[in-house]
Amino acid sequence: MKIAHIGEFGLIERISSFCKSSHKEGVVLHIGDDCAALKFNKPLVVVSTDLLIENVHFKRSWITPFQLGFKSLAVSISDIAAMGGTARFFLFSIALPSDYTVEDVSDLYAGAHTLAQKHSIEIIGGDTSASDSNVLFINGTILGEADEIVKRSGAHKGDKIYISGTPGDSSAGLFLLQKYGNQIDLIQGTAQVEKGKDFSNFIPLVNRHLMPEPRFVESCENITSMIDISDGLLQDLGHILDKSNVGATVYLDKIPLSQPLKSMAERFHKDPFQFALTGGEDYELLFTSPESTISGYHCIGEITKEGRTIIDSEGRALSFSEKGGYDHFRTR
Amino acid sequence: MKIAHIGEFGLIERISSFCKSSHKEGVVLHIGDDCAALKFNKPLVVVSTDLLIENVHFKRSWITPFQLGFKSLAVSISDIAAMGGTARFFLFSIALPSDYTVEDVSDLYAGAHTLAQKHSIEIIGGDTSASDSNVLFINGTILGEADEIVKRSGAHKGDKIYISGTPGDSSAGLFLLQKYGNQIDLIQGTAQVEKGKDFSNFIPLVNRHLMPEPRFVESCENITSMIDISDGLLQDLGHILDKSNVGATVYLDKIPLSQPLKSMAERFHKDPFQFALTGGEDYELLFTSPESTISGYHCIGEITKEGRTIIDSEGRALSFSEKGGYDHFRTR
Repeated sequence: MKIAHIGEFGLIERISSFCKSSHKEGVVLHIGDDCAALKFNKPLVVVSTDLLIENVHFKRSWITPFQLGFKSLAVSISDIAAMGGTARFFLFSIALPSDYTVEDVSDLYAGAHTLAQKHSIEIIGGDTSASDSNVLFINGTILGEADEIVKRSGAHKGDKIYISGTPGDSSAGLFLLQKYGNQIDLIQGTAQVEKGKDFSNFIPLVNRHLMPEPRFVESCENITSMIDISDGLLQDLGHILDKSNVGATVYLDKIPLSQPLKSMAERFHKDPFQFALTGGEDYELLFTSPESTISGYHCIGEITKEGRTIIDSEGRALSFSEKGGYDHFRTR
Repeated sequence: MKIAHIGEFGLIERISSFCKSSHKEGVVLHIGDDCAALKFNKPLVVVSTDLLIENVHFKRSWITPFQLGFKSLAVSISDIAAMGGTARFFLFSIALPSDYTVEDVSDLYAGAHTLAQKHSIEIIGGDTSASDSNVLFINGTILGEADEIVKRSGAHKGDKIYISGTPGDSSAGLFLLQKYGNQIDLIQGTAQVEKGKDFSNFIPLVNRHLMPEPRFVESCENITSMIDISDGLLQDLGHILDKSNVGATVYLDKIPLSQPLKSMAERFHKDPFQFALTGGEDYELLFTSPESTISGYHCIGEITKEGRTIIDSEGRALSFSEKGGYDHFRTR
């Protein structure tokens, strides 16, 4: 149905149903006034805002509105998780291209709503407009709370470096979407098998790119610094090192690779570590701690006084640059 | 300078200077981590988000980046003011068309920063991206606080209706911009005088449209409901009436008209009340109170049990509809 058929107020009414979940705690005044009014339980409010723009951050031919709504909230939750906070409230601004339908908008909200319900987050409103272009624009703003926050700046020499899961999966999924996104129905998980093109094993990679599940740490007690991996492992580690004024040594053979990533890299004659070290949008958490092991997380290296070193599987030490990351290091 | 010359990180560095003002109170962690971390002083947090999209909400040929940044924050502050809250923190997401320069972005932030300084608001960050189109997208999110809030829903029969200033100026300014925006340099206040086209008297109207100063009430003690006029006086009054489940009588000759609006209407053979009653984007505050007079505000009518009536200057009672407002009423 065209949005013009139900008008702005009709659209707002449809959207409102997704903004009124069972998790009303803390919502003093909901969507429908000049502002929402909220109550927090903890002393610190943490807030982040993220743009998702068609053809810059996604292609509509690859991602459904439901997945896009899910992803928009997921990347926002990840920002709160990376501070050691608890996400509470989400605001959703969308500027719609002229071919976007009422169903598309409902699906977008439904995707966000599904993840919101899972994490007891309330969608408290937003703004909706025409985009006056063929481009879909989304801006998500998330509000969370914390007793205390984990910054990027707290890493100390001797701390271990931990990661919450397997990096590189998202960028490997993106690689497949860029290469075959228009040919196979990877999105629905029903890849059509052509000769030499059975990609069904790689669907977890595509799913990781399209619908990243935000990660959390159970306790921040012994975590000295944290970031979520959006730009790539080495680049985001670089942000911690910059802010903490320290160095790091990363061990290549300690970096956990998923089986789908290993298969995919083999199939396409790619280096899986290229994806794992420089690929973006994993939304895995990367953190440092003086603890020598932390159950459920992978230790991939340690914080040093200075320098940025990768030890490869043959024990060779190679430096990685601040910006180029592994890519730069490979061309030496 | 093209943004490509300094890159994303260079741009963020330029922007950061506008995000670090002297009003640091409450900012525990600023731009540059995954989230900003904030402390509030009052029990309620009020939040609103607003899109400003090129060719939908503004034309770049009419409004400078500085004015646009100013306006983006102004409309956000107005939302907080309409709840009886105090604005504290602002987040600014911008998606840039390819012809936007580093100077344009700096001016955009400078405009917001100028207003932020005036109201002790901290710009705590945001997101920046290419827009992959010729369209400039802005999303502002504002966070404020309040001891208690004034809703739209609290108006009672017998309350008086007040307005904080002269409505219609903004839409009269928009009329001039739409008609002559490309011909005269109204924006700079240096209108070139052609025969029959001396619009210098009308510049306050244009300024009201381009750089609205947010309004505030001194005390919310006896205010029962409030809204800021963004859609037009009658339509926004309608929102209060809907939420409060009451009616209203408005007296046409009590509605304050500015001298520039009166002159402009005469010059263009327009009805000034058309602008005052249905014109949007005034960002004047409209509120109700049992007080019979409130110094500094104009009483324009009263809340009734039901019905929506305008009494014209000859004492005739005419009803105004919920949606069409004055416009609808005029065509009867």
